[in-house]
Amino acid sequence: MQLDAYFDGVTERDWQTVDDTVDPVRFAVVGTGWWTRKGALPALAESDFCEPAVVVDRDADSRETAAGDHDAVALDPDAFVDGDATDRYDAVYVATPNNTHREYTNAAARLGKHVVCEKPMEVSSGRARDMVDTCEERGVTLMIAYRMQLAPVARRTRELLAAGFVGEVQSVHSHVSDRLLDVNPDPDQWKLQPEIAGGCAAIQIGVYPLNTTRFVLDADPVAVQATTGWTREAFEGVDEYAAFQLEFPDGVVALCSASHDAYVSSHLKITGMEGEITIEPAFVPWRDRELVLERHDTRTHVTFDQVDQMVEEFDYFADCVRSGRTPGPDGRNGLRDVEIVESIYEAAESGRRVSL
Amino acid sequence: MQLDAYFDGVTERDWQTVDDTVDPVRFAVVGTGWWTRKGALPALAESDFCEPAVVVDRDADSRETAAGDHDAVALDPDAFVDGDATDRYDAVYVATPNNTHREYTNAAARLGKHVVCEKPMEVSSGRARDMVDTCEERGVTLMIAYRMQLAPVARRTRELLAAGFVGEVQSVHSHVSDRLLDVNPDPDQWKLQPEIAGGCAAIQIGVYPLNTTRFVLDADPVAVQATTGWTREAFEGVDEYAAFQLEFPDGVVALCSASHDAYVSSHLKITGMEGEITIEPAFVPWRDRELVLERHDTRTHVTFDQVDQMVEEFDYFADCVRSGRTPGPDGRNGLRDVEIVESIYEAAESGRRVSL
Repeated sequence: MQLDAYFDGVTERDWQTVDDTVDPVRFAVVGTGWWTRKGALPALAESDFCEPAVVVDRDADSRETAAGDHDAVALDPDAFVDGDATDRYDAVYVATPNNTHREYTNAAARLGKHVVCEKPMEVSSGRARDMVDTCEERGVTLMIAYRMQLAPVARRTRELLAAGFVGEVQSVHSHVSDRLLDVNPDPDQWKLQPEIAGGCAAIQIGVYPLNTTRFVLDADPVAVQATTGWTREAFEGVDEYAAFQLEFPDGVVALCSASHDAYVSSHLKITGMEGEITIEPAFVPWRDRELVLERHDTRTHVTFDQVDQMVEEFDYFADCVRSGRTPGPDGRNGLRDVEIVESIYEAAESGRRVSL
Repeated sequence: MQLDAYFDGVTERDWQTVDDTVDPVRFAVVGTGWWTRKGALPALAESDFCEPAVVVDRDADSRETAAGDHDAVALDPDAFVDGDATDRYDAVYVATPNNTHREYTNAAARLGKHVVCEKPMEVSSGRARDMVDTCEERGVTLMIAYRMQLAPVARRTRELLAAGFVGEVQSVHSHVSDRLLDVNPDPDQWKLQPEIAGGCAAIQIGVYPLNTTRFVLDADPVAVQATTGWTREAFEGVDEYAAFQLEFPDGVVALCSASHDAYVSSHLKITGMEGEITIEPAFVPWRDRELVLERHDTRTHVTFDQVDQMVEEFDYFADCVRSGRTPGPDGRNGLRDVEIVESIYEAAESGRRVSL
């Protein structure tokens, strides 16, 4: 029965080409923030094709604790850059503040190591481009950690759109918001410092609606208009919120918004000539997603058993490395987002449509 | 129990001040298109405080048939403008092509009759302003037929927002789409002729997200950015679709879209600091609406027994007339929408943010 087949395949690893007889990809993890400790390191420990091997952080206590939890080697960042313990790892996961992504990615590339770098890729397109160039010169694989591209709900949506399930796509609405100061009340945190973060809501979380829309549509925007602003004092001078309209080819418009100071919420809704697909919540990794499919007045709700997106991401990366493929969210994919975010800031500042 | 009280009051006529001992407001209906025949005339017949009395249309067969169905008097538009049968009616419902709204509204005002005029109010703000002025000079009540302002789902949402249910509002997403050529395949229909309609998607259906957002927020936008376009040949030169970002005071941004060539769909989602309210479908009158309330991780779905919005609208108008109140969606409310839509077209044309 077709519905059976659909249900069985819904969270399948459609990308998998290797099996668990492959040599695991041993990771050096750079940066031991909350996301690394609670997300990345447990995911590497649980993954089929990867393992945690080295932990790098400037804070000695933090790196020793994290390394101890995973039988890994602890390294100071200078020692890492100098090439210590390169025999212990094959790839590097960069999860440091945004303006240090280039430094650690390029160091890894020079050491001949493959890289998974957290999003946003860097604080400017010039720096991101340098990372792409360096990784290409050194022949290492670079993936940007867009876990949504490995989320079954996004992959099934992309397939449905490509197969014409909703007919020609007409418009997209997407939103993401969280309360940054609830997660970390420190007014001096780096996420509020544009020279370190490259901006605030647009570059830090606006990339979720931006990159996921590009992914599911399999298209890139050609122009953007935007509004950014702040209302709460802690966000003075940075984009507490950003709203941006992306014009895609063939008259498709995506209306996206991101806020670091609103109720935790996210959605992605794609409307076509014949139907509509809604994912909600869309980007929060720890809640089940509901996919709502509607066409010709028939409506289906599909609730996905949530996979661990970080495990999927690392295993996908290992599969690409071991099979010699380029990952979908590669350096150029991440660079394009940084270029678009720069145009979002330019459009908001000038009040003009910016062509991409 | 509070929940009981909420359920009992959810579709209550919170605006009602008169009772059925009041003299009914007898209506002359101008224009006998589909909406008048299937919506307005049956609603007037069913309403508590109104009744259909006169039917005006240039087409003799059409006006005679509609009048016969409702024991009403049939009038040619010239006879109506000349003041025939003014003793038979107290108010006029104008449901003609957009660029004739001024003519019939002002004729009614000069005859001392109150007016309910369909939205959009007219094809330009100059003409709409003339209607406001004429009705004020003649001391008649003018209401623009924004039935969403009488829909319980919108009224309860406005109350919840005013009471701070979601905290400070941060952003709004709203969409409306239909397939104009499915409803009427005629490529020469007036809705595709900008000189008659004043534009296409933005002015004809973009007013749903626009006016409803203004209503639920109880605020007016201060700036707009927009994109309009067409992809299908029948829409050449007009806005088959429009996307617009409205900046409201206090950093609230509404991202709205409208298309006359997409799957029938609509939604309105308001995100605040503490929670979120979603109405979906939002603007289609013949389907039950679902109101989803979410705050602090608690989520409630409220499905409304759909009231007949046209009955509500006419009875509300009669209540205003009989009690001497100004309706919420008055001429100035409708004029503001026409001004904003003009700015949407200007912003789309210029690619620049337009201040309002």
